Amino acid sequence: MTKPAVVTGIEALRGALAELRRADESIGFVPTMGALHEGHARLIEVARRDCEHVVVSIFVNPLQFDRRDDLDRYPRTLGADVEICGSLGVDFVFAPSAAEMYPTEPACVVDVHRLGDHLCGAFRPGHFRGVATVVMKLFQIVQADRAYFGEKDAQQLAIIRRMVRDLDVPVEIVGVPTVREGDGLALSSRNRLLSAGERSKAIALFKALESVRHAIAAGEHDAAALVRAAAATIPADPAIRLEYLQIVEPEELQPVSAVTGPVIVAGAMWVGTTRLIDNIRTSQS
Amino acid sequence: MTKPAVVTGIEALRGALAELRRADESIGFVPTMGALHEGHARLIEVARRDCEHVVVSIFVNPLQFDRRDDLDRYPRTLGADVEICGSLGVDFVFAPSAAEMYPTEPACVVDVHRLGDHLCGAFRPGHFRGVATVVMKLFQIVQADRAYFGEKDAQQLAIIRRMVRDLDVPVEIVGVPTVREGDGLALSSRNRLLSAGERSKAIALFKALESVRHAIAAGEHDAAALVRAAAATIPADPAIRLEYLQIVEPEELQPVSAVTGPVIVAGAMWVGTTRLIDNIRTSQS
Repeated sequence: MTKPAVVTGIEALRGALAELRRADESIGFVPTMGALHEGHARLIEVARRDCEHVVVSIFVNPLQFDRRDDLDRYPRTLGADVEICGSLGVDFVFAPSAAEMYPTEPACVVDVHRLGDHLCGAFRPGHFRGVATVVMKLFQIVQADRAYFGEKDAQQLAIIRRMVRDLDVPVEIVGVPTVREGDGLALSSRNRLLSAGERSKAIALFKALESVRHAIAAGEHDAAALVRAAAATIPADPAIRLEYLQIVEPEELQPVSAVTGPVIVAGAMWVGTTRLIDNIRTSQS
Repeated sequence: MTKPAVVTGIEALRGALAELRRADESIGFVPTMGALHEGHARLIEVARRDCEHVVVSIFVNPLQFDRRDDLDRYPRTLGADVEICGSLGVDFVFAPSAAEMYPTEPACVVDVHRLGDHLCGAFRPGHFRGVATVVMKLFQIVQADRAYFGEKDAQQLAIIRRMVRDLDVPVEIVGVPTVREGDGLALSSRNRLLSAGERSKAIALFKALESVRHAIAAGEHDAAALVRAAAATIPADPAIRLEYLQIVEPEELQPVSAVTGPVIVAGAMWVGTTRLIDNIRTSQS
């Protein structure tokens, strides 16, 4: 285990990476907001296997938070994150300040149009424009050969794939399957905000998604009926609130009325003051 | 004079340019919509002087035309353009089809917010979003060291500079002064749409802009008064219509009420069915 270089300046990172590129060595990139967990570790491991060098960015991007309290409360654990990166053979941790990334309020941003209309996009105005914009900036700074994203953030992954295609960004996007706890809970930096009692309730979202998979396998294809039945599996508990549960096609994330091909079933659920998301992919059996 | 390679495919161009980059040779990029004239030639000459290789793109970008008739009528002279590029030592002419650049309608685009609110942006809805999006795509495809833009398109140049800064695009933007005819008319691909009679009337726009320069030098700093006096210099002629004449600060292109520092004075004027633009830079004397 060698210590990764922690770089906070854009030009410093560019300079270091330019040397690697001149030597024609491949660069894998894992953009994160820190508070690293096993899900991120999986992304880094895949990047490590594919590429000669790995860059992990740690930046809690203010542009993608629609609520100030959520931004303030987002876990920040840089010291521990750098340790984890070191143990996984990461070469560079890029940890810029907000002032380094946004010296002035950006006028030019990446808009995502209809891809942000549904799922989380419907509940977090401007969120995916903020995500697309910061990821575009990071792509321009790192100029990696490949970038790694978790499938847990399905809408984010679909939007990044589309952005790369629409704007011809020279990077290969690699989606990595969601890492789950033993009971199925998707790993998330936000899980550490849950109390023990909340943690046990959090599994309801994954169970609801799985119920859709089973109902499709059993022959139910009507989206409204599937969603209704799935929502009914969520326990009546004042600490839990299902924000949405929706079935969409995997390309443009538009809602389907009937399941006749591959779909993404995605949901968001509040447990106390913590918002969790999850999704599964399935298709008509 | 060697013939430039004419490339129509994105991947073919990427492949050819990757070789140059591996050899650490510099690439200059001149994006155009074709119908090349002396103004473009100046851009190419500057690029030629600065860089080891020069790429000229020729693409009439449908995304930036708000009017279908204007898109259809825009001059297209590929054969002559390639000749000119050859005579100027261009290495690659990139001339993609619309289907190559937009295989599907783009969902992710570059928005320019307030930078598109005034000047031409106020009269051509979506125009600068289309410009920023196609230039971003071309930057991603060519990955040049430097890109060259004419100062004649002042709003475009300011927006591209801002896009590169806001999104950290690794390219240096070089602005090149407007090339003018003997009487001062700014060179434009659209000039070739003018009849001889219209050509002689077209100079009124530049004369109006110059009158603002003189009035500022003479001590007038009130923007409204300056614009009023300049508009009054435009001959009363049914073939001529001033679309706008505006004084803005050079960074974010917001209108000023008083000239207290450097400004851009910009205008658009219709001569018959042809729309011409021009601008000058000046400052309080």
